[in-house]
Amino acid sequence: VYNLRSRVIDISTEKRTSLLNLKDAEAFGIRTHDRVRVRAGERSVTTIVQTTKTIVHPGELGVFEDVARQLEIESGAMVAVELQPAPTSLRLIQKKLKGERLTGEEILNITGDVVNRNLSDVEIAAFLLAQQFHGMAIEETVSLTKAMVETGASIDFEKPVYDKHSIGGIPGNKVSLLIVPIIAAAGLLIPKTSSKAITSASGTADTMGVLAPVEFSAGELKKIVLKTHGAIVWGGSLNFAPADDILINVEYPLQIDPESQMLASILAKKLAVGTDYLVIDLPVGKESKVESFEEARGLSNRFIELGEKLGIAVKCGLTYGGQPVGYAVGPALEAREALQALEGKGPSSLVEKSTALAGLLFEIAGKVIRGKGQDFAKEILNNGRALKKMREIIEAQGGNPMIKPEDIPIGQHVAEIYAPADGYITRVSNRAITEIARAAGAPMEKGAGLIFYGKEGHKVTKGEKVLEIYAERESKLEEARTVALKINPITVEGMLLREIPEF
Amino acid sequence: VYNLRSRVIDISTEKRTSLLNLKDAEAFGIRTHDRVRVRAGERSVTTIVQTTKTIVHPGELGVFEDVARQLEIESGAMVAVELQPAPTSLRLIQKKLKGERLTGEEILNITGDVVNRNLSDVEIAAFLLAQQFHGMAIEETVSLTKAMVETGASIDFEKPVYDKHSIGGIPGNKVSLLIVPIIAAAGLLIPKTSSKAITSASGTADTMGVLAPVEFSAGELKKIVLKTHGAIVWGGSLNFAPADDILINVEYPLQIDPESQMLASILAKKLAVGTDYLVIDLPVGKESKVESFEEARGLSNRFIELGEKLGIAVKCGLTYGGQPVGYAVGPALEAREALQALEGKGPSSLVEKSTALAGLLFEIAGKVIRGKGQDFAKEILNNGRALKKMREIIEAQGGNPMIKPEDIPIGQHVAEIYAPADGYITRVSNRAITEIARAAGAPMEKGAGLIFYGKEGHKVTKGEKVLEIYAERESKLEEARTVALKINPITVEGMLLREIPEF
Repeated sequence: VYNLRSRVIDISTEKRTSLLNLKDAEAFGIRTHDRVRVRAGERSVTTIVQTTKTIVHPGELGVFEDVARQLEIESGAMVAVELQPAPTSLRLIQKKLKGERLTGEEILNITGDVVNRNLSDVEIAAFLLAQQFHGMAIEETVSLTKAMVETGASIDFEKPVYDKHSIGGIPGNKVSLLIVPIIAAAGLLIPKTSSKAITSASGTADTMGVLAPVEFSAGELKKIVLKTHGAIVWGGSLNFAPADDILINVEYPLQIDPESQMLASILAKKLAVGTDYLVIDLPVGKESKVESFEEARGLSNRFIELGEKLGIAVKCGLTYGGQPVGYAVGPALEAREALQALEGKGPSSLVEKSTALAGLLFEIAGKVIRGKGQDFAKEILNNGRALKKMREIIEAQGGNPMIKPEDIPIGQHVAEIYAPADGYITRVSNRAITEIARAAGAPMEKGAGLIFYGKEGHKVTKGEKVLEIYAERESKLEEARTVALKINPITVEGMLLREIPEF
Repeated sequence: VYNLRSRVIDISTEKRTSLLNLKDAEAFGIRTHDRVRVRAGERSVTTIVQTTKTIVHPGELGVFEDVARQLEIESGAMVAVELQPAPTSLRLIQKKLKGERLTGEEILNITGDVVNRNLSDVEIAAFLLAQQFHGMAIEETVSLTKAMVETGASIDFEKPVYDKHSIGGIPGNKVSLLIVPIIAAAGLLIPKTSSKAITSASGTADTMGVLAPVEFSAGELKKIVLKTHGAIVWGGSLNFAPADDILINVEYPLQIDPESQMLASILAKKLAVGTDYLVIDLPVGKESKVESFEEARGLSNRFIELGEKLGIAVKCGLTYGGQPVGYAVGPALEAREALQALEGKGPSSLVEKSTALAGLLFEIAGKVIRGKGQDFAKEILNNGRALKKMREIIEAQGGNPMIKPEDIPIGQHVAEIYAPADGYITRVSNRAITEIARAAGAPMEKGAGLIFYGKEGHKVTKGEKVLEIYAERESKLEEARTVALKINPITVEGMLLREIPEF
């Protein structure tokens, strides 16, 4: 035990770190990444050591604000520092690194230490890379899913719960704004949690956020859903499977996404709301997350198998992911298009995809016989019950239930992009569309985005408008226009695509 | 580009980090671990982003002290922040993660970014784990070794350079204090860089540190060696292969040590002083780093092959590593034993090992014919030339050349451990010995350590003294005594070890 004068450091790392002068560290035989227990009176907390040559002097311990708060100390208080053995979770990560299989208890131990910030980012990276290299047995993935649920909040509705999840990657995918009211209108519970855009132009939570607030606690979500049967809220404030955000931050720079972790993260959030029936939307196509049907089929089987072991009946819908869904991209433009579709004036790609997925849910729920689900969903959409239900949901979430598509403010600065030649649109690039919409300001500037006037297979004449870009600020519009002209989001070709031989 | 008010944070992480409020990060589409270029006037520096919810407010950028110094700004200065693409090195790490082979240029790119702190610990961990999982081809390891040299300081002696390296793990291994003067006395250059103890009771730099200063710059080392032909200095202040320290800090919590990285780190430090001939001491035995001869033979072959490609003639000496070398453990006690050996009064295990390894160096240097090296080394030791040379080296490094073994201060607090029964010492535990010496205060308290009065094979009678523990403080002595009584470092058994059958 070493007694040091504490020095509170005025930042919160949200990680349990303490800072030791390198000379002291050497004298005490303590190294970077070692754990020390820091004790002040009755209180103590275990922190991970970082060393410094400069600011924290010998005899001092740098205590980050979050640790100081836990210890209830201020700068200058004496603290006792004692080297701790590495936590069990670290030994278990080392075990997985060697390719050994982990038990459920062991996985829960690791997950708990991830959530409690008792593992450093380096150690978490090792856990993820061990999964990436050695894979995980299905039993391990089941344990990981359960552990992610157990270490976070959850809701028990005491009734069957339905849900839909898209693995993402396709711009304009506002289908949840149709599916949720369709399912809820049929009297089934669908507490849809969704994400904000990280790299896309609008996440479901961003799009719904145009119509109503989306940040709720678990208790508030439960109340809303028990009243309206449906909700579309942001998952970020619910504390469901909180390990996920921490893991994603570590995966991100390495661009890894171990399948076991991806499966567990998705299903944990569903399990946290007690989902019994789940439809997963797997968009397949160029520049989508899954590029081939074989890959999609393999992934579907794993989702289904894992669902079975977790008590969730899973059905996967392989959908066309080669170009955006509908004609609008960006939070406000997508919200407007979704409302139009609920009013019966939506583009067919959006309506077909939404009702097909809703139909699958009705079928696995046993509401209709197999093959009749989509018709049932279309009926609810066409007879206005879905729109009525959406208004109830908007109201329950604190939005204006009487909002009309034309009330939604969109960007006032508009640029038009024209077809460069006569011919057919042969390709709309998901990646390029997202890049342009983000350059225009989406998702932070709600009114930014774009609208197509033609998609794949449409015949266009040279000079015809194929795209409109919307922005809230002139400077952003210019940025987006520059990007659009450079990366060419829409390819137009004559019917004769290629001559063979080429000379 | 976003303009923010800087806020200098009063710690140096020795890593290029900046801290962004989570709300700003979301608004800018910037994530944890992203790179941003921070610009202040003409100056700019690329930093890795961490986010916070609390202390850095929206509109502010938290700038750590080292970054502030580089930008020459103080708190309140406006800085422009711009998202940067991930560095090439990170893409290359991702490539290695997929199991692809890296070119020399690519490995140099990664190593450069490690040294420049342009890669986070998580990213460095991924590089090490990729090596661990996929291994490295010999050409990659060659490139890694060269890259580690190129990204640090080096010395060109313009003459053949000799060196000896021990892979470590054995307590009491003070052989360098004999080998260096023996080699130098024969007129060969031996600029021995060594390490301080991290987990052991005394590193060579700690032991030599008792006799003379060991911290020098590369220029100073060169001057000393050109004068005396030999030196024993601490590697830490020389900036040879600086990537190594950074990598070791990341390996440590994960307890990984990829062989490619281990080989490269060792040979890079030798290459940095222009080593032409190298003898590697591989102690083999229980609780040593290499436990079997097969393992040692494989490792030797890799050292030799790698050495060939790097222009270093390598010879590996497999030595007995089952128990400590000599009778003394701990900085002062070991320095005293080494001086005694140079005076011709050393224990045979120390003299035999030192002269055998020095002999190998003489043989590969062509000083003597094969099989005559050890005799030649013993002659230099026995005729006092090694002692004379050691005094010159001590003087050149700024120590007292006339120091005698009995002048070296050792711990005043002594405890004795006795044989528990009549019999033979069948085992001395390396691990237990290290633990006791560290509990007594070694290596920070120079006088702490222990002395054996019997080693493996010695006959003892019950109650006979087998071990003395030395400490500078009574409290440390008590700690060490408690540890010694608990873990039993020396096993005594009757000649009849086991009866078969046992009943």
